[in-house]
Amino acid sequence: MKVLGGELMSWKLYLKNNKDKFINDLSQFVSIPSISAIDDHFDDVVRAGNWVANRLQLAGIKNARLISTETHPVVYGDNLEAGNTKPTILIYGHFDVQPVDPLKLWDKPPFDPYIKNGKIYGRGASDDKGNMLAPILAVEAILKSNSKLPVNIKFLFEGQEEIGSPTLMPFIRKNANLLKSDMIFSADGGQFGEKQPNLIRGLKGLLAFELIVTGAKTDQHSGKHGGGIANPAQALSQIISSMKDLSGKISIEGFYNDVLELNDDDRAAIAKIPFNDTEYAEALGVDEPFGETGYSTSERLAIRPTLEINGMHSGYQGKGIKTVLPSKAFAKISCRLVANQKPKEIYKLVEKHIHKHSPLGVTVEVRKLPSEANPFLVPRGHNSSEVVRKVLRELYNKEPFEVYVGGSIPILSMFLEEFGVHGAVMSFGLDDEKVHAPNEFFRLSSFSRAQSAYCMLIEEFGKNC
Amino acid sequence: MKVLGGELMSWKLYLKNNKDKFINDLSQFVSIPSISAIDDHFDDVVRAGNWVANRLQLAGIKNARLISTETHPVVYGDNLEAGNTKPTILIYGHFDVQPVDPLKLWDKPPFDPYIKNGKIYGRGASDDKGNMLAPILAVEAILKSNSKLPVNIKFLFEGQEEIGSPTLMPFIRKNANLLKSDMIFSADGGQFGEKQPNLIRGLKGLLAFELIVTGAKTDQHSGKHGGGIANPAQALSQIISSMKDLSGKISIEGFYNDVLELNDDDRAAIAKIPFNDTEYAEALGVDEPFGETGYSTSERLAIRPTLEINGMHSGYQGKGIKTVLPSKAFAKISCRLVANQKPKEIYKLVEKHIHKHSPLGVTVEVRKLPSEANPFLVPRGHNSSEVVRKVLRELYNKEPFEVYVGGSIPILSMFLEEFGVHGAVMSFGLDDEKVHAPNEFFRLSSFSRAQSAYCMLIEEFGKNC
Repeated sequence: MKVLGGELMSWKLYLKNNKDKFINDLSQFVSIPSISAIDDHFDDVVRAGNWVANRLQLAGIKNARLISTETHPVVYGDNLEAGNTKPTILIYGHFDVQPVDPLKLWDKPPFDPYIKNGKIYGRGASDDKGNMLAPILAVEAILKSNSKLPVNIKFLFEGQEEIGSPTLMPFIRKNANLLKSDMIFSADGGQFGEKQPNLIRGLKGLLAFELIVTGAKTDQHSGKHGGGIANPAQALSQIISSMKDLSGKISIEGFYNDVLELNDDDRAAIAKIPFNDTEYAEALGVDEPFGETGYSTSERLAIRPTLEINGMHSGYQGKGIKTVLPSKAFAKISCRLVANQKPKEIYKLVEKHIHKHSPLGVTVEVRKLPSEANPFLVPRGHNSSEVVRKVLRELYNKEPFEVYVGGSIPILSMFLEEFGVHGAVMSFGLDDEKVHAPNEFFRLSSFSRAQSAYCMLIEEFGKNC
Repeated sequence: MKVLGGELMSWKLYLKNNKDKFINDLSQFVSIPSISAIDDHFDDVVRAGNWVANRLQLAGIKNARLISTETHPVVYGDNLEAGNTKPTILIYGHFDVQPVDPLKLWDKPPFDPYIKNGKIYGRGASDDKGNMLAPILAVEAILKSNSKLPVNIKFLFEGQEEIGSPTLMPFIRKNANLLKSDMIFSADGGQFGEKQPNLIRGLKGLLAFELIVTGAKTDQHSGKHGGGIANPAQALSQIISSMKDLSGKISIEGFYNDVLELNDDDRAAIAKIPFNDTEYAEALGVDEPFGETGYSTSERLAIRPTLEINGMHSGYQGKGIKTVLPSKAFAKISCRLVANQKPKEIYKLVEKHIHKHSPLGVTVEVRKLPSEANPFLVPRGHNSSEVVRKVLRELYNKEPFEVYVGGSIPILSMFLEEFGVHGAVMSFGLDDEKVHAPNEFFRLSSFSRAQSAYCMLIEEFGKNC
């Protein structure tokens, strides 16, 4: 126990006294260009991992270390001094970042972080370096102000999140004993607003595939052979058209079979979140929202599965006209899935539908793309979520909104699959922080709040365990 | 009158005696790179025009001359010595050629013509220099072997056919008196085979347009906004899909209204031409032909109108997946029209259909593309066609097949529109001559045959007029 002027130094005071130092730490962390998507930056990803392991050690997590995987490394560290009778929590984040293109749209170099109007600018400041550093600093604050953590804590930080965590699952399986924990908290995610917290209840899953429709063996003259053989671009359009009705409902047989229907609590929770159709349409530049009948726009976005054409192409794409009858037509399609849809099962239905609806005169090939994620839904009243709810309520003095996210955090599905443990998200990035875009920033107020939040979360276990 | 050994020298003998000289003439003509599509070759197009005007003069067409248009020039020449009581015929061809890309696929430079196995190789040898030179040589043969032509002859050769004759119609209108004639013969077209002649009865018209479907003002994240707004690629597919039913019939209301239905004579004429569905499918690499029910494949190709997607694109087209919800989707579409469809009328129907079938949540724009051609159908038993039929029958000792061509020869529609005169095609290019492709060639046997054919055609008027 540290004593300051005769009194116990609280974690609050510790955080306050070290505020500038922690901002400097973050600045140093952001300056490492740990872009996982670019091979030339592999060493920087390793460097960022080593920086994290070192920072964990400075925080008092003595056995922190970088661990190799088949691709980009992870960092693991723990403090299990609370002992067997206490629960073990795992805190997750990632130290790799997105590429910086287009570089010319950045006001200053993306890896020379700077502070302006209470914000720290730089690639990764919000996603996820600022957010993942906070729980490390929180643990430090508790360890430096008290002697002992009231709960066992494991940290797992990865260097491959921005490329879809391709080799994380094998790592988790191989290290199941090391990682096993009772609750999981993700420092990657986000909050609703500066004054309004959220609990992330669900994340959508992902299934992606491509369609290749082939007609004649080479492009033909449309004057010479038009009307005599099938046109693959027409056939592709017919297949795509068959997958959704005009109201936006997906027509693939069985597609909705495993979808959990909204109950009154779900609907009420979604309806609590302010959402204005007109403002939404205006922001995106469309005349009106559009989607499956029987659901509000926020319901469609939150908890209904989707099927979207991500791209398609065929034949001539230049100026004017070229009277070609294309040989091939291509489409890339992805589905966002919701609980309890399973990507592999849905893919079987998609394949069956496409083969059933393949027009005559062409060959249709469907190929599953490797990206895949299970949908993730935290049961309402789930233990870790309730801890987060309590912390957020206290921090913001407001009940958190229950939100659903269209993207996925692959590790949450992996942990659920491997350990049967639902993770809860406690992260403080906001929507306007230009994550994945030029001039990414993180609010210093959010950085401080995140540190307090993780202290409060850990403290919460002291009260209850 | 020229006398040889006391006898009249026939055009046959003249052609025979000058065979090598004429091949040299053609070789010289082909060596001029008169590519109308490439601005840097404009002077070469003019040079080719001057070569033609000069060659006409050498042949005895004294007033032959190059005439400027708003773009590429034409060559005009006439011999009207037959007088007012005799009919006037116009013979058409073009002296511009297609570009040569890809150059590396040519065995020898495209403008260094050479002869191998009875064929002359070089860009434009078949399309249309060899074919258009033949009637000039035929007139020379008659003038040098007799004193007078039995019919008034006008020649019109253009230097802009390969770019769609953009400024030919204004030229024709402006020079209506100069060009007015009773019959028109095109030395651009083709024959069925070396041993089987054809009469071209119909050419399809053309209408081309593009479709631009817009959703959100920029590409969006498909996880974040999928299901909330319309997807323009999906909408485009739905519109394209609505334009044809699954059997290949065009669903645009009124599209077939002006189409002349096949009568028994038409069907019989088409059925006479050998066509094997299996061989056709094999040649194009498809499992089976595909098209409008109620018609044979050859009927579909010959005289049914078509609507073909020439190209389309939207969103992401690279490797793997990018979960983008595209902002825009594009398609280029062209219709081949048959008598009596009118491109402008059909375009109105297309526009109406598209607006009627535009899905909610997107903006749909239709733009007509400038390429446009009327369909062309020679009435059966038409005078100029009957003259050609007679000549071909005599030359090949076979009845010509009555064929329809998917492409168009714009000048035939222009003459029909301006003078009410149906042109007849008499040209000797064959399908395998790599027209528009590397290693274009023309058979020297076809070159000789074409010269005889035009002599016979002119002689025919001597018998009948």
